[in-house]
Amino acid sequence: MKISDWGEEQLIEYLAKQFPSAKNTFGIGDDCAVIPYCEETVQLVTTDALVEGIHFLKEKIAPRDIGYKAIAVNVSDIAAMGGRPKEAFLSIAMPCYTDSEWLKEFISGIKEGCIQYHVDLLGGDTVGSLRDLFINITVLGVAEQRHVKYRHAAQPGDVICLTRSLGESGAGFLAMQNNSSPDSTIESLIQAHCHPQIQVEEAVWLASHESVHAMMDISDGFAIDLGRILKASHCGAVVSIDQLPISEPLKRVCSENQWDPIKLALTGGEDYCFLFTASSAAYRELSRAFYDRFSCRLAVVGYITDQFLPIIYQDRGKFVDLDLSLYNHFKG
Amino acid sequence: MKISDWGEEQLIEYLAKQFPSAKNTFGIGDDCAVIPYCEETVQLVTTDALVEGIHFLKEKIAPRDIGYKAIAVNVSDIAAMGGRPKEAFLSIAMPCYTDSEWLKEFISGIKEGCIQYHVDLLGGDTVGSLRDLFINITVLGVAEQRHVKYRHAAQPGDVICLTRSLGESGAGFLAMQNNSSPDSTIESLIQAHCHPQIQVEEAVWLASHESVHAMMDISDGFAIDLGRILKASHCGAVVSIDQLPISEPLKRVCSENQWDPIKLALTGGEDYCFLFTASSAAYRELSRAFYDRFSCRLAVVGYITDQFLPIIYQDRGKFVDLDLSLYNHFKG
Repeated sequence: MKISDWGEEQLIEYLAKQFPSAKNTFGIGDDCAVIPYCEETVQLVTTDALVEGIHFLKEKIAPRDIGYKAIAVNVSDIAAMGGRPKEAFLSIAMPCYTDSEWLKEFISGIKEGCIQYHVDLLGGDTVGSLRDLFINITVLGVAEQRHVKYRHAAQPGDVICLTRSLGESGAGFLAMQNNSSPDSTIESLIQAHCHPQIQVEEAVWLASHESVHAMMDISDGFAIDLGRILKASHCGAVVSIDQLPISEPLKRVCSENQWDPIKLALTGGEDYCFLFTASSAAYRELSRAFYDRFSCRLAVVGYITDQFLPIIYQDRGKFVDLDLSLYNHFKG
Repeated sequence: MKISDWGEEQLIEYLAKQFPSAKNTFGIGDDCAVIPYCEETVQLVTTDALVEGIHFLKEKIAPRDIGYKAIAVNVSDIAAMGGRPKEAFLSIAMPCYTDSEWLKEFISGIKEGCIQYHVDLLGGDTVGSLRDLFINITVLGVAEQRHVKYRHAAQPGDVICLTRSLGESGAGFLAMQNNSSPDSTIESLIQAHCHPQIQVEEAVWLASHESVHAMMDISDGFAIDLGRILKASHCGAVVSIDQLPISEPLKRVCSENQWDPIKLALTGGEDYCFLFTASSAAYRELSRAFYDRFSCRLAVVGYITDQFLPIIYQDRGKFVDLDLSLYNHFKG
């Protein structure tokens, strides 16, 4: 039997069964492993593998962006649990015919990511490969133990919130695939996809609030990622698609290209903003304080229910039946 | 220009220049990165990438051994600096046609390594690849800050010591390459290559002694690895080849196969025992205490000089000129 016959879910379940201590961190669990550190602090550890031809195409994305993004997505995992990134380790396996200019640009992107997010790259491993290029980044971070946010902490009645608008990265990916003519909006969407900005301070600030319950970053898309919070918390959710934060420029590009902005927002993925649930009683105050601190509005898109069911979508108060499967090809 | 035109040294120098905080850990430096931890302790971090076709051939080594060895070599890096391994992270990228039985056996080897060395596998990443199979292991460990041993701490006059005999792994590799008929000695050599035993307690014990100065594990071979201690410590060394610890069974197999046991001992590599330098005044007492504790004799093979020169070899007191280049094809 081949691994492809297993499917990802069976593979992850198998690994989680073999390594019970890793069951919360293999793919479906939390963004990071949490290790007791010093006194009131914990260490957070995350690791991500990127493979040429699977996660990126060398001819489609600049090497500098690959390097930057490899650091950024790991930083996002650390921040998603309320931590600050501290150290990084880079393993790279590449065939001997790799262009040295490509490598230099890739490394400059790694460096840019490390500088931007105050991460020290402390080591790694460089080896040869026969054909494919393979990158693995491990990032360590630190958080206050009492501030660490998990996926399993959503509570019925919580509001479901986002720190930034959705769908831009997914639209940028589509624009790259379609070789859309690059005006400034298209450029900014492609930038959102290739060079995501991670809201580390925002995530750490949110994590320091008791009224914030569950938190994670959006990598595979709002619908899949909210589903993970619901599964971990044994809850359900009602989401109002008319409340989804979708920027005006994205709406315009969607209209020009006949893309569905709602499906992009729900399934585009790689948004790398933060999805969290918060006590509804405390939300108004939390939102005001967030705006005072970051000059940026949180979005509320729904609420948590005590029914462990798939996400229920509504549009201006009426239930709607969405077929999200069409957009699965967005996934890297 | 291609990466192959650079060569490994130029690549590592380039990376070390780009990431000054990693200059001691990229390939030529210490076995691990050292991060301040809690009070008097530090955290040690090491990461290793293994690529199919470069580091192992699926048809030559059992998947269980690949898994076990992937953990063991990282454990060896932690122990080499005086630490105990604690947590591990596994990234694996594999093509969809990978045999699920192969994966199960590989994972059982990872598990065996984790159990044997008291390591918790806390997470990782599983992704697809187009063609090649990649494995990356990161291991975290803990050491007392004052006990951490570095490569740069060798002092002129120190004796050069080994915790175990040399050359068996290299001979096992040769036996596998040559499909030697497997008697019990050949089996034990192949076992030394495929399933190395890491002397964690021995290394931690040595590290706790002030009279032990520089320490590292032998992965690339005694000659290369001692050269790294000398380079880091700005010293030279005189090594007596008649003092090299070479087991009687290995000598016999070498004689039967016309292999040179001295060159195997000096360049075979993957011995995963520990190479250290110690104060000559304290050595006798250290060696006695080591024997009392582990029922195992340390070997002294030479001494450190204050001349920063290539290793000088002697045989029963006479200088000899060895050509070690012949054995470079041993390297993975």
